[in-house]
Amino acid sequence: MKITCNQQILSKTLNTVSKAVSTRTTLPVLKGILLEAKEDGTLTLTASDLEISIQKTISVNVEEPGSAVVVSKLFGDIIRKLPNEEILLEQAEDGSILIRTHSSEFTVVSLPVDEFPKIGDQEEEREHLIFDAEIFKDMVKQTSFAASVDESKGVLVGVLTEIHPQSVSMVALDGYRLAVSTEKMNSGQENHFIISAKIINEISKIIAEDGDAEEVEIYLGKKKATFRIDTTEIVLRLMEGEYIKYRDIMPTQSTTDIVIGRAILQESIERASLLAREGKNNLIKMTIKNNLLTITSRSEEGNVKEEIIMEKEGEDLEIGFNSKFVIDVLKVIDDDEISMHFLTGTSPCMVKPVSGDAYEYLILPVRIPTM
Amino acid sequence: MKITCNQQILSKTLNTVSKAVSTRTTLPVLKGILLEAKEDGTLTLTASDLEISIQKTISVNVEEPGSAVVVSKLFGDIIRKLPNEEILLEQAEDGSILIRTHSSEFTVVSLPVDEFPKIGDQEEEREHLIFDAEIFKDMVKQTSFAASVDESKGVLVGVLTEIHPQSVSMVALDGYRLAVSTEKMNSGQENHFIISAKIINEISKIIAEDGDAEEVEIYLGKKKATFRIDTTEIVLRLMEGEYIKYRDIMPTQSTTDIVIGRAILQESIERASLLAREGKNNLIKMTIKNNLLTITSRSEEGNVKEEIIMEKEGEDLEIGFNSKFVIDVLKVIDDDEISMHFLTGTSPCMVKPVSGDAYEYLILPVRIPTM
Repeated sequence: MKITCNQQILSKTLNTVSKAVSTRTTLPVLKGILLEAKEDGTLTLTASDLEISIQKTISVNVEEPGSAVVVSKLFGDIIRKLPNEEILLEQAEDGSILIRTHSSEFTVVSLPVDEFPKIGDQEEEREHLIFDAEIFKDMVKQTSFAASVDESKGVLVGVLTEIHPQSVSMVALDGYRLAVSTEKMNSGQENHFIISAKIINEISKIIAEDGDAEEVEIYLGKKKATFRIDTTEIVLRLMEGEYIKYRDIMPTQSTTDIVIGRAILQESIERASLLAREGKNNLIKMTIKNNLLTITSRSEEGNVKEEIIMEKEGEDLEIGFNSKFVIDVLKVIDDDEISMHFLTGTSPCMVKPVSGDAYEYLILPVRIPTM
Repeated sequence: MKITCNQQILSKTLNTVSKAVSTRTTLPVLKGILLEAKEDGTLTLTASDLEISIQKTISVNVEEPGSAVVVSKLFGDIIRKLPNEEILLEQAEDGSILIRTHSSEFTVVSLPVDEFPKIGDQEEEREHLIFDAEIFKDMVKQTSFAASVDESKGVLVGVLTEIHPQSVSMVALDGYRLAVSTEKMNSGQENHFIISAKIINEISKIIAEDGDAEEVEIYLGKKKATFRIDTTEIVLRLMEGEYIKYRDIMPTQSTTDIVIGRAILQESIERASLLAREGKNNLIKMTIKNNLLTITSRSEEGNVKEEIIMEKEGEDLEIGFNSKFVIDVLKVIDDDEISMHFLTGTSPCMVKPVSGDAYEYLILPVRIPTM
């Protein structure tokens, strides 16, 4: 292998691909990145941790085609710190890789190419789905934070994507709250798949860092999915298991409905949390009375009362929440105002943008001890 | 106590004063900030960890004078998160503090005022010294990083300030390198004092955050010093002990002198360190031959050679360094070029700006094993 390429492009590509490099692995080759230079003037970089693999191809000047595996951390650090010049990469007879610019010359060891894991053979009969890149990122942002972080919870650490003929939903829940984001799309026949929240967030980051990607193409197999973002290809293992029938737990009616400023509510709850966090469950109490929402909390260090004017229809109500679960959703809605829908002080509360059903967020209340 | 004051001003003041609050203390009152409202319309905030105390006075509207001690972390978090409005602070009969704005109302516990440590009585017969604020910050930046971080090293964890009739020097050393920064000043009679590097860095930060401070006034007692920065007063305990006679270890001659670009040298050494850091002592080798400086390093993962053109007078030379000690000094010099002065491959090397003796930095070499 002997190639020359631009430092900036190589560095950016390494940054993307290295997201799939294992940090904790006993298999040395999984700390590596596979470089494949082909006669058609392309360099393909691949990293894989057996659960996800990321591959990206760039145009370079290939003098001699060939393959090598370099240690991701060291190779990435070197390339990033080189000046913005043409870089020569050349494999010596002993396998080591020479990295040369005008005034720097590195020689780094290589890892065995034949031990590098193969990206699974592409499965037949796949379905094909195309997302707008911005919509994909928004849907991930509005749901993935609600997935469980407890690895023992099976599919609940994942985000469910449900494909309907006219729409697609992403869903996440952790037993305390549930987030559903739905977009109208001509998306083909009914289907669904589950991807770990950690991995779907990495995919979102790759889209954001790419900058040029307008679409996310998804090829669905039975056990794997391939995501194509610009010239980046991500192959990942789908999560197996049955997802909870979440529609069954969503309330269909309410007796108290409020409309309230999102930013002012977030700030008030964040302040109330300063005392709530010392206590159990980050407990805050919301009292809805006439057109005033009062948020209270107390700990051994003191107590707090926050008041916000709002619009209300229906009954007055008292309800307790873990403040974190309310703050989390207020951070991912962009609208100036949100609506909240209550049935009783012990039933789940629904949070939504003021109009439409594109986003639904359900929070379980916390029992209020005598305060 | 009953006062009203502006949220922004109070928040900024708490930020400054809280730098003296103990994070690790068994004495609860040391986690507090003393508030003293006086009839002349001022609020004085004080924090102290027995080694340093910081006090700042601001103008407020005082309805009832009085004193209280609030828990620094909670009180600071609340004030910072309140909107930019007038804040009412009022002490209730049970001692608790009410914090009120338009729509928020907090009540927080207070700590006993009489347990709050007194800032030491001002000592008599003090000397007075005035620094330009920018010069003070520069001198601290160019020296404090070279102080030892090993608490068992006594005065070496401190920065020595030497006052001469026509100049002031700051000095720090840790046994591997020595930094001396000198400025011409009409500073009175010979004197010297030692302040822990950690504390003198905090003082530098307070100057930087203040923004308005043009001068740093220092009042020197025998055991304590008082720093006045704008309306902030810092009282600290001076370190006791004899400082090393550092002038005795500074070389007075050299046989190899080079002038080299600072940024290019820093970048080359940082790249070489990528391999050096894996080995012992971050070892890099510098080879000076004709007008070329070659920097090499190697580890089990590979090797590196960096080349830089430079100006040289005198002999060719080979010398080894801990790369960190060279990078550290290159980060604190602003000039485009620096000079380095060598005697032999086993003698300390002097690094300076190209002209003048305002800054001198000495590095001990590392023995080069057969590479």
